[in-house]
Amino acid sequence: MSIAVIYGSTRENGNTEWLTELAINDLPVEKIYLREYNILPIKDERHTKAGFQEVTDQYNIIIDKVLKHDILIFATPIYWYSMSGTMKLFIDRWSQTLRDKDRPAFREELAKKSAYVIAVGGDKPTIKALPMIQQFQYICDFFNMAFESYIIGKASKPGEIPNDSKAIAAAREMNASLKNKLKLN
Amino acid sequence: MSIAVIYGSTRENGNTEWLTELAINDLPVEKIYLREYNILPIKDERHTKAGFQEVTDQYNIIIDKVLKHDILIFATPIYWYSMSGTMKLFIDRWSQTLRDKDRPAFREELAKKSAYVIAVGGDKPTIKALPMIQQFQYICDFFNMAFESYIIGKASKPGEIPNDSKAIAAAREMNASLKNKLKLN
Amino acid sequence: MSIAVIYGSTRENGNTEWLTELAINDLPVEKIYLREYNILPIKDERHTKAGFQEVTDQYNIIIDKVLKHDILIFATPIYWYSMSGTMKLFIDRWSQTLRDKDRPAFREELAKKSAYVIAVGGDKPTIKALPMIQQFQYICDFFNMAFESYIIGKASKPGEIPNDSKAIAAAREMNASLKNKLKLN
Amino acid sequence: MSIAVIYGSTRENGNTEWLTELAINDLPVEKIYLREYNILPIKDERHTKAGFQEVTDQYNIIIDKVLKHDILIFATPIYWYSMSGTMKLFIDRWSQTLRDKDRPAFREELAKKSAYVIAVGGDKPTIKALPMIQQFQYICDFFNMAFESYIIGKASKPGEIPNDSKAIAAAREMNASLKNKLKLN
Repeated sequence: MSIAVIYGSTRENGNTEWLTELAINDLPVEKIYLREYNILPIKDERHTKAGFQEVTDQYNIIIDKVLKHDILIFATPIYWYSMSGTMKLFIDRWSQTLRDKDRPAFREELAKKSAYVIAVGGDKPTIKALPMIQQFQYICDFFNMAFESYIIGKASKPGEIPNDSKAIAAAREMNASLKNKLKLN
Repeated sequence: MSIAVIYGSTRENGNTEWLTELAINDLPVEKIYLREYNILPIKDERHTKAGFQEVTDQYNIIIDKVLKHDILIFATPIYWYSMSGTMKLFIDRWSQTLRDKDRPAFREELAKKSAYVIAVGGDKPTIKALPMIQQFQYICDFFNMAFESYIIGKASKPGEIPNDSKAIAAAREMNASLKNKLKLN
Repeated sequence: MSIAVIYGSTRENGNTEWLTELAINDLPVEKIYLREYNILPIKDERHTKAGFQEVTDQYNIIIDKVLKHDILIFATPIYWYSMSGTMKLFIDRWSQTLRDKDRPAFREELAKKSAYVIAVGGDKPTIKALPMIQQFQYICDFFNMAFESYIIGKASKPGEIPNDSKAIAAAREMNASLKNKLKLN
Repeated sequence: MSIAVIYGSTRENGNTEWLTELAINDLPVEKIYLREYNILPIKDERHTKAGFQEVTDQYNIIIDKVLKHDILIFATPIYWYSMSGTMKLFIDRWSQTLRDKDRPAFREELAKKSAYVIAVGGDKPTIKALPMIQQFQYICDFFNMAFESYIIGKASKPGEIPNDSKAIAAAREMNASLKNKLKLN
């Protein structure tokens, strides 16, 4: 078993990454920084005659990386009470992959995976990020993918997250739980 | 008083637009189709020394159009239980405008406006889009902008929305209410 | 087909009832006013050896009335952002009925029914009652009962609800939709 | 500073109490078991000429105990995705206390307190109890009372909660944080 961490942040070494590091400490992960890829907004062509048209960006590189792993950690800063636009662009494109002849088992493959969310925001995130958590649940439900757990951290300026003892305790517990799941304990 | 309709759809003449047409019938609106503009993802440079860097896209054209109006209607298809990535990109950039020396009154200007949301989705939207509605409320709260009302319609294929009698009744009521607000009755 | 309206209000002729009247106009309904019955809090005895003990109140009278109908309308004022305590007492007791040897098909019977919610509150109810709506969805999901639709009205003092044109439009639409469902159109 | 723990459970020594014990270990608390008191449903008489009538139950005993403390921990099992009916009856009565001439500073007194929630349920509680958490936030907002933090545990049968390592880590962290707040560290 292995883990893909999908980073939605646009900032390097930000609070979300710091918190995520605690959760993935000593674990076999592939880190995917969405900001390093060009991802275009989906064009909804589901119902056109020709269907979705090939898009010339780097989305497929990412989705192929993601699909190699068993556990997906979505690590996103909270922008305007939701995942970052960058991460939303990535997830929106799943609608296209669902109809991609080159990846016919996309839905079934996701159904076998487990999802985790780690999110950090500045404005009362343990309350105001709950709608985002519910949305991740709905996304997982769609694919019948297990949404195992989530951590919401509080920080806005760089370097603030180490003050959130609650999030740190949760990240350490997630780390232990992941090690257990990967039989590394 | 006048209205800006901000369309987040990537499809022309889709269900969201059809439903929105009912709500804005005979009203003075400026229609802004986000898909016609190039909007880049925000780079969070809030806390860098130099602050946000100029971004060479068309975001500022849109925000200047939006700020001319008193009433903002966010009309978005529901992609993965949330606003479209295109609309999220647009809203994420508000963090930059909040620190834009050329638009120092951004927050105060939004505080004077009223917001409405019209959203259409296919998967139990009257339940599964509620987190998105809560997020719009938090966004409005941040700016102290009144979130007047919202309509959630159900449709997935093009042309399905006329079957949603509940959304249609709500759109007609919103139209009457907007006419009243604009003293057009 | 017939309808049971389950009223959670503690006040006679309140705003919730007024709004509900619009939705059930000319329809065959049995009105159940929970306030007219003595309902004791559930004692969680699921896991005791003896199981749930007989409770000497009037709950069973109500549940038997409810089970005779195909459509359930939960009409509740919004107290502290949720259903009234009276209605919560009633629903909490369902856990007991689920284990009641005299009503072995309780779960299956509810699965065949459709649920509607009509709720009225004073403090930004179209936003702040959304968690309650999500809870009703979870309750319906538990029983595999269809949660057809809901209306949230705004009013606090007696007689205020007629000012809520949005809720009135929604109640009229619900009435038409129910007539259609009952083949009364 | 001192703590009131308000238990909404109807079962003795249940999972909610077990988890709460971890959070209040070595702290000065008054434990209030709502099940030991007779609490009648509120009758909404806000708008009657005579106002709320004296109710002959034991609610006032409880509210007087609660008001003596600085920190309120609401410890409730999750019944039907919400607080127990017993706890809802208690909170519903706050509407009456808000108009009680013998407790004219009720609102101001609550504004000075901090609230915590500890809730345990069996059906995907870390997702399905989120609406309840949002409702507690709205309740706290009403009184301008700080909603400091919450823990959601997973358990249904008696004795299951010790398996929830995530909730246990959170309860220990809450204990440390409370000790810090009460200057006991």
